[in-house]
Amino acid sequence: MTTQAQTAENGVNVAALLGARKALSDAPEAARFKWRATSEWLKGTHSRATVDGFFGLGGEQTHRQTYQFDSDHPEIFASEDKGATPLEFVLVGLAGCLTAGIASVAQHRNIQLKSVKATLEAGMDLRGILGVDADVRNGFDGIKVHFEIDADATAEDIAALVAQSQKRSAVFDIITNPTDVTVTTSKT
Amino acid sequence: MTTQAQTAENGVNVAALLGARKALSDAPEAARFKWRATSEWLKGTHSRATVDGFFGLGGEQTHRQTYQFDSDHPEIFASEDKGATPLEFVLVGLAGCLTAGIASVAQHRNIQLKSVKATLEAGMDLRGILGVDADVRNGFDGIKVHFEIDADATAEDIAALVAQSQKRSAVFDIITNPTDVTVTTSKT
Repeated sequence: MTTQAQTAENGVNVAALLGARKALSDAPEAARFKWRATSEWLKGTHSRATVDGFFGLGGEQTHRQTYQFDSDHPEIFASEDKGATPLEFVLVGLAGCLTAGIASVAQHRNIQLKSVKATLEAGMDLRGILGVDADVRNGFDGIKVHFEIDADATAEDIAALVAQSQKRSAVFDIITNPTDVTVTTSKT
Repeated sequence: MTTQAQTAENGVNVAALLGARKALSDAPEAARFKWRATSEWLKGTHSRATVDGFFGLGGEQTHRQTYQFDSDHPEIFASEDKGATPLEFVLVGLAGCLTAGIASVAQHRNIQLKSVKATLEAGMDLRGILGVDADVRNGFDGIKVHFEIDADATAEDIAALVAQSQKRSAVFDIITNPTDVTVTTSKT
């Protein structure tokens, strides 16, 4: 039995993505996206974010449904743990981005995925955000991501899938490189 | 009527946070945290992340409950939109972090918050992740955050609250400054 004639089915429409790449090469304005979220403070460190619409392909777009996420600090910080911490949402975004990339690249390379599991861990010295030591940064001192992948491919091909996903990952780029954040305020 | 004798009640236990700051100044090992997430690929660009335990204060900690988040790409990318995009999770984390900081700083400064609403928008040129133009980055070209805050304080005091939150925000730091991400892979 050979696998050459088989086509991998990972559920990614690569033809559509390649079509989009060609279309957006010719229409750079359509490639300008704006991703959005709103959030509302509830009590203490607990807030609720809403994700609904975004802008792209030259117009306003909406998700198939509205997504809401509660964020809070854990009980050991004297909070009520009514949601994941903001830090964990960053890890969730990174996992989702790299995993979607792996599936897309696997489809393009005709590699059938069977399972893709990620484990993420980010170290942080809390003395940063608490203002104990000005030399300690507020954020993570680094993130380790480990993928365990079962697929019809060699270990080398699997490692190459992950490397390509990393190379094209938006969230990986946002975290590893500086991204400007401008904060403004108004009193209502 | 004066407000001098009143104590703001924003639901943040500042005494506990100040106690933690003192305790962690004397015990830097307890300040070493590890935040975690796991994720599993489901189909196409759809994956599910789980947030459960973390390490801190010298031991393993667990959330009050397990949190799960579905991540996917939208339908205009030929995906099924079974969750928010990974990019939107980054915005959710940023909103949650800055908002929790605002509430904490307001409590410390005895400013009663009435409402805190955030609107976040991040531009992105899709030609980066599609590999159309090597000069276009994969990630956001910037994030704009706007806070609308109703509080018993002047506009200047409110702006100062937000500035202090920004200064001590872990997610703001992770996004605006480079953070190492190490990715490893194994075949199962």
